[in-house]
Amino acid sequence: MFIYRKFFTLKKIKAYLKNKMQAQKIKISLIQSPHFIDKQVTLSNLEKLITEAAENKAKYVFLGECFNSLYRKDALHANSEDFSSHTSPTISLLRKLSKSLEIFVLGSLPELDPLTQNHYNTAVCFNPSGELIAKHRKLHLFDIDIPGKITSKESETFQSGSQITVFEAGPVKIGMAICYDLRFPELSLIMTKKGAQILFFPAAFNQTTGPLHWDLLLRSRALDNQVYVVGVSPARFQEDPTYYQAWGHSGVADPMGKIMVSCEQEVTILYQEVDLEYIEQVRTQLPYQKQKRLDLYKVEEL
Amino acid sequence: MFIYRKFFTLKKIKAYLKNKMQAQKIKISLIQSPHFIDKQVTLSNLEKLITEAAENKAKYVFLGECFNSLYRKDALHANSEDFSSHTSPTISLLRKLSKSLEIFVLGSLPELDPLTQNHYNTAVCFNPSGELIAKHRKLHLFDIDIPGKITSKESETFQSGSQITVFEAGPVKIGMAICYDLRFPELSLIMTKKGAQILFFPAAFNQTTGPLHWDLLLRSRALDNQVYVVGVSPARFQEDPTYYQAWGHSGVADPMGKIMVSCEQEVTILYQEVDLEYIEQVRTQLPYQKQKRLDLYKVEEL
Repeated sequence: MFIYRKFFTLKKIKAYLKNKMQAQKIKISLIQSPHFIDKQVTLSNLEKLITEAAENKAKYVFLGECFNSLYRKDALHANSEDFSSHTSPTISLLRKLSKSLEIFVLGSLPELDPLTQNHYNTAVCFNPSGELIAKHRKLHLFDIDIPGKITSKESETFQSGSQITVFEAGPVKIGMAICYDLRFPELSLIMTKKGAQILFFPAAFNQTTGPLHWDLLLRSRALDNQVYVVGVSPARFQEDPTYYQAWGHSGVADPMGKIMVSCEQEVTILYQEVDLEYIEQVRTQLPYQKQKRLDLYKVEEL
Repeated sequence: MFIYRKFFTLKKIKAYLKNKMQAQKIKISLIQSPHFIDKQVTLSNLEKLITEAAENKAKYVFLGECFNSLYRKDALHANSEDFSSHTSPTISLLRKLSKSLEIFVLGSLPELDPLTQNHYNTAVCFNPSGELIAKHRKLHLFDIDIPGKITSKESETFQSGSQITVFEAGPVKIGMAICYDLRFPELSLIMTKKGAQILFFPAAFNQTTGPLHWDLLLRSRALDNQVYVVGVSPARFQEDPTYYQAWGHSGVADPMGKIMVSCEQEVTILYQEVDLEYIEQVRTQLPYQKQKRLDLYKVEEL
């Protein structure tokens, strides 16, 4: 009893608990960045914005879909990068910034596989040591046709990936997928089952599907899985209003399905404190993660 | 060619197509009905409301959760009925009305299994011949605890069912489940996979979870599965404001995730034309039902 008291004083226990509580809270930033025809302009703008986010104490900086390029086949192919090359400008920039600013940086960019010469829409995560710790190639390509509104055949630009992506990034487990992947509830269910606490979707919804479905999808994936959902879009394209205009409205939904923070279509940096402990609180109050009827149905990764 | 023309005149083709189109449109009604302490008063009110809906040409009349009873253990047990008995008052009323008015009637009521003496929260569907054609025993019981807001342990009142319920009701295939079942995306995914075009959830969300999640869940189940979702609640309880107050807000969400029709918390009859053909239109425009990566994940009934 004497030894026990010596090692576990009230002061030490309090310090331990305080430390544990703090570790559960992370400050994130979402950068709804501008795209320019000139890739160098896009990247130097991005550098300023990421630096500003880090100066404001964000430890996780989330970027949009194909953040280094216009969203058009020729531009996407021209801006694709070989992730293994040390001269790839976007990859080099992310490596440099994540290391010098000691932050996690996440977002999607077009990838060129040097072996197969295939192009992918690929989300990455760099850690504060400047290492690429996770990579997700978009699984579901955006092939749709709403007559008179929006037509897209992304499969003419990219190949699709073949892996579901969940990884540890410091104290938090992140499930990462891209834009249209958000439409498929099975994917989010499986990422959650694999332990994801934040689901991150870089995306570029359009002016038709954006107002109809963007908030609804962020909120419902968050609610169904009782996790945080981070959705980041590019800003509306400034240089040519006749060009593809992303819906913007980057935001974070909390485990109760509420939008915590969001914005309109302009260039914006959002900040949000995310409390991982709240996930457990919500799951205790509404324990439907534990009440699934696993005797009747099953969702599984193949 | 001569024979061909004789049998398939333009007039006949037009008539056939018109007929087919009309068969795709059904008029439904949602009755957000009042509950009274006296079951006979509840049932005679219900008879008037169902009759009014049928007089207004509704062919499918949807009722709420445990529509014949207060939502309290003693009342639910007292109002439970043996579905096989010819003297069960609620079952007899539904059989009589569905036959005389030539309508489908659907809703949930407490069931007493005469063999096991178990109680269930059970949704039923009667067809225009007065036959009980489908029955769903609630799969997920509402056991939650949000301190200071709402605590519930439905498993102290009911046993849970063990079957997923999808059935043909005239030209439409309906997936039927109850209230808390709506929280589980796997169930709606499977009902859709089994061909459901309308998902029907009699429910009684409360004044905490109602404003937070009711519309969001109706809309997201509709959008994810590209089906209609019909949610029907009891009206706010008039006789005693200190008693369990259902959220009301019965409504229909369309396959694009839009609320087509809804109401507040008072006694209300809603009417809505539902175009089954629209499901196919939406699924052609946004073909994500066909774009699932069935090589990577699977949702299945066990």
